[in-house]
Amino acid sequence: MQRSRDPSEVFDAARGGDRAALARALSLVERGGEPAKAIARLASPHVGGAYTVGLTGAPGSGKSTLVSALITLLRAQDIEPTVLAIDPSSPFSGGAILGDRVRMQDHATDPGVFIRSMASRGHLGGLALAAPEAIRLLDAVGKHWILVETVGVGQVEVEIAGKADTTVVVVNPGWGDSVQANKAGLMEIADVFVINKADRAGVEDTRRDLNQMLDLTALPHDAWRPPIVPAVAPQSTGTDDLWEAVLAHREHAEASGELARRRTQRASEELRAIVARRVEEIARAVSTNARWEALTEAVVAGEIDPWSAADEMLEPVIDR
Amino acid sequence: MQRSRDPSEVFDAARGGDRAALARALSLVERGGEPAKAIARLASPHVGGAYTVGLTGAPGSGKSTLVSALITLLRAQDIEPTVLAIDPSSPFSGGAILGDRVRMQDHATDPGVFIRSMASRGHLGGLALAAPEAIRLLDAVGKHWILVETVGVGQVEVEIAGKADTTVVVVNPGWGDSVQANKAGLMEIADVFVINKADRAGVEDTRRDLNQMLDLTALPHDAWRPPIVPAVAPQSTGTDDLWEAVLAHREHAEASGELARRRTQRASEELRAIVARRVEEIARAVSTNARWEALTEAVVAGEIDPWSAADEMLEPVIDR
Repeated sequence: MQRSRDPSEVFDAARGGDRAALARALSLVERGGEPAKAIARLASPHVGGAYTVGLTGAPGSGKSTLVSALITLLRAQDIEPTVLAIDPSSPFSGGAILGDRVRMQDHATDPGVFIRSMASRGHLGGLALAAPEAIRLLDAVGKHWILVETVGVGQVEVEIAGKADTTVVVVNPGWGDSVQANKAGLMEIADVFVINKADRAGVEDTRRDLNQMLDLTALPHDAWRPPIVPAVAPQSTGTDDLWEAVLAHREHAEASGELARRRTQRASEELRAIVARRVEEIARAVSTNARWEALTEAVVAGEIDPWSAADEMLEPVIDR
Repeated sequence: MQRSRDPSEVFDAARGGDRAALARALSLVERGGEPAKAIARLASPHVGGAYTVGLTGAPGSGKSTLVSALITLLRAQDIEPTVLAIDPSSPFSGGAILGDRVRMQDHATDPGVFIRSMASRGHLGGLALAAPEAIRLLDAVGKHWILVETVGVGQVEVEIAGKADTTVVVVNPGWGDSVQANKAGLMEIADVFVINKADRAGVEDTRRDLNQMLDLTALPHDAWRPPIVPAVAPQSTGTDDLWEAVLAHREHAEASGELARRRTQRASEELRAIVARRVEEIARAVSTNARWEALTEAVVAGEIDPWSAADEMLEPVIDR
């Protein structure tokens, strides 16, 4: 087949199992604009079959090795997993430094595994919009298990990882210092904890630490208490326990209605973000550059505050 | 004076030098809504006298100790610095874990120093909007030197620190591993590099590493090359060199027109963010809950894609 750039042809080919076409479709989603919207329209009727598992943790916690071990486990069960690796940490260059991805090279030649990296496209909130779109596309082309790996524990990473159906937080023995500032955020998104590198000293201390924090954390209304699974990813130790914990959480989330609640909540947040983006686009298109520049200069000069300037900007656009 | 909650009275008291009133005004800005907009309107005519210095670096790089040493240096020169410590890493709790702030206790009783922490208010982009508003307020009440310290090197931290008039990036000897993923972003925002903890081994390696990366980085059009300053903050070694580098950058930025260009660029970005926020508010107010929920459910069910749903949401609001 000729390499097409037409969203409809690319999407159909991706749905037909063409991996190169799926890669192209994901690039269209990443780039945004009209082709991305076309992909969203095409994908929508086909969504609902996928389950997403988010994995997050500090750099160096061994997430990639863990994901690689999970892939091996799933392949042995004839599951064909997809990995979406998210790197929002390079906001300006747009180029992800994904050295860790080399650890997944073992699976690079396996046609039953699809691995994709996404980096920030240079604007705040870019990935927060692009990641759910990419997941929707993967869902629509028939990917049933999507592992969403984020490279760090910053705000955007935690935000994205926390929007999975099941979220796995990866820590290490003695994790206290490095991620201290993010503990609160991580406690709130974790459905399962993995103490990776559990062949090192301090596993029981870390488990006690996590349990104490869980005791202090108000459990969500569905009363699921995140299990704590020790693992040594390079030896695949604990990977099966981790997967069982993920499946147990899935079963609980489905039975309790928590999964449906989360998905609705997620769609609502996504819709809100898109509404804001759309109107910004419209406002920018309507306002002349001269008007925009004049208001910007007035803000710099202290002649007007930015909120009043924004209202003035919007006056010709908004019908109130 | 009676503790007032009226933005106008609070602002006037803050401008008159009442520190408690300034703290209350900052709280109003943090909380957002109408009082924050009132503060923005009141502050606008008085801005322009402040210079902001952003400091960012990985957790543990010794930023707080460095800031504390800078305060000591500035106080000896009869400068009255303000510190705005930004912690976006706790997106869900809204509560900052600012253990490092204790290092600034030395200055807590000095009326010539004003220190304030800001945490995320739970929504993405919240601090990106609140931080410039807080800086505008501090500017308007007569704070001339504002040190903006961020706790980490995630996307939001880099974004906020990179919006200062002069941005200082703090690294340590052998920094390679921990901040690798953020190098690209940090290289682009740095006006000055500090190699803190320079009494440890590896300073020259780190300097060479930074110089090599600077050689590879396209210099901005004003051709300022970030100096690299070694420092040992607890002994205040290098603090004077750091401050000289900051002053040299300020002089260069003012003379080259880069400062004016940056401030206009920043105002433009802030305006854009506020425009988006305002319209989102309007869109949400206009749409009935029933309509919003129906569209959200339709997205979850795959009956409509989110972009089309957003357009449907906006139809009654936008006058095209």
